[in-house]
Amino acid sequence: MESKAVVLLSGGLDSYTAAAIAREEGFRLFALTVRYGQRHAREVEAARAVARALGVERHIELDVDLSAFGGSSLTSDVPVPKDRAISSEIPSTYVPARNTVFLSLALGWAEVLGASDIFIGVNALDYSGYPDCRPEFLTAFEEMANKGTRAGALGESWKVHAPLIAMSKAEIIRAGTALGVDYSLTHSCYDPHGELACGRCDSCLLRKKGFTEAGVADPTRYQP
Amino acid sequence: MESKAVVLLSGGLDSYTAAAIAREEGFRLFALTVRYGQRHAREVEAARAVARALGVERHIELDVDLSAFGGSSLTSDVPVPKDRAISSEIPSTYVPARNTVFLSLALGWAEVLGASDIFIGVNALDYSGYPDCRPEFLTAFEEMANKGTRAGALGESWKVHAPLIAMSKAEIIRAGTALGVDYSLTHSCYDPHGELACGRCDSCLLRKKGFTEAGVADPTRYQP
Repeated sequence: MESKAVVLLSGGLDSYTAAAIAREEGFRLFALTVRYGQRHAREVEAARAVARALGVERHIELDVDLSAFGGSSLTSDVPVPKDRAISSEIPSTYVPARNTVFLSLALGWAEVLGASDIFIGVNALDYSGYPDCRPEFLTAFEEMANKGTRAGALGESWKVHAPLIAMSKAEIIRAGTALGVDYSLTHSCYDPHGELACGRCDSCLLRKKGFTEAGVADPTRYQP
Repeated sequence: MESKAVVLLSGGLDSYTAAAIAREEGFRLFALTVRYGQRHAREVEAARAVARALGVERHIELDVDLSAFGGSSLTSDVPVPKDRAISSEIPSTYVPARNTVFLSLALGWAEVLGASDIFIGVNALDYSGYPDCRPEFLTAFEEMANKGTRAGALGESWKVHAPLIAMSKAEIIRAGTALGVDYSLTHSCYDPHGELACGRCDSCLLRKKGFTEAGVADPTRYQP
């Protein structure tokens, strides 16, 4: 019998590709989307379309209003930075402890499912400077999960898979394209206008550059 | 200036005592209550009363519906066990990854507040066999937080305080009583009937035993 895995699905390009890799590796997919009060709720609709395209066994959408805490331009009225040179500095779009919260929720569901594998589409190369996208964070999370769960207490080892961690955006797009990923379903923009991506936030800039470098046509519809 | 701390407040006896200890240690209190789909929603009302009694600077109540995942008698229709001999076995009232989720949320808020201290009322002695109440779990959580947050990346060390970790229920009640804690505000029962505690679930059994051993009058109203 195939193993189950919980995949964190945001509706963006990265998490879709990570989930497609999980499927390719033979896992049965259980997709978790967290509605965390982000301004780009378009993402959540995209996550639904992506979950359908992946044929996941179950898709849970969970509300966790991180905007109650403030502190990020993605969940508050602070303007999203535009045309920013991508640097190693931690930007205002960092949502405090977001991946820790997401992975914790995935952990809870995985434990109920009897799964010990979690997939997350984080990336340490084009990672916009987020501390919770670093490999040492993921390893520390696995160790914590081994201590804090019934499965771990019984000797199970948790594995947080981050198949994109060392890939450039172009490599991600090439890998996903080879697996039949339909990137027109995905949404990356931090500050969309209706159906259109802004084309100028960090996320749009990385996405555009990725498609160009991969030599793959960009299906994204940008603001004129 | 006094340091800020985020205290996880459930409305139960333990978290109130832990928060009172944090206040005694000079921290400014920011209380977080998570409504996680527990059947004993009475707890949440108790948390409000406790937050008022503590004089916290802010109290956030956050909805995170862990019942979407199932797997625990506290968030599903599985009956809460009654009159069970307290053992080291993990019981059905274990909510998968609950403390990991709670601490992750506290971490996110603390980071926004510029705090690096979190208080949680877990207890390894009378702990009902929950893996996420063990000291090695809390240490692993701190290490993970140091890797996964902006503050950690900038060299800050996170501290998860669990002042009750090595105390018996009777010692907790004595400590809280000395700090002026009003236990009549708290609620522990996993399966209450209106205002009345059942008197027979693990949580009621531990609470009763604690008051008896502490030689403190139990203000709880139990079902006849």
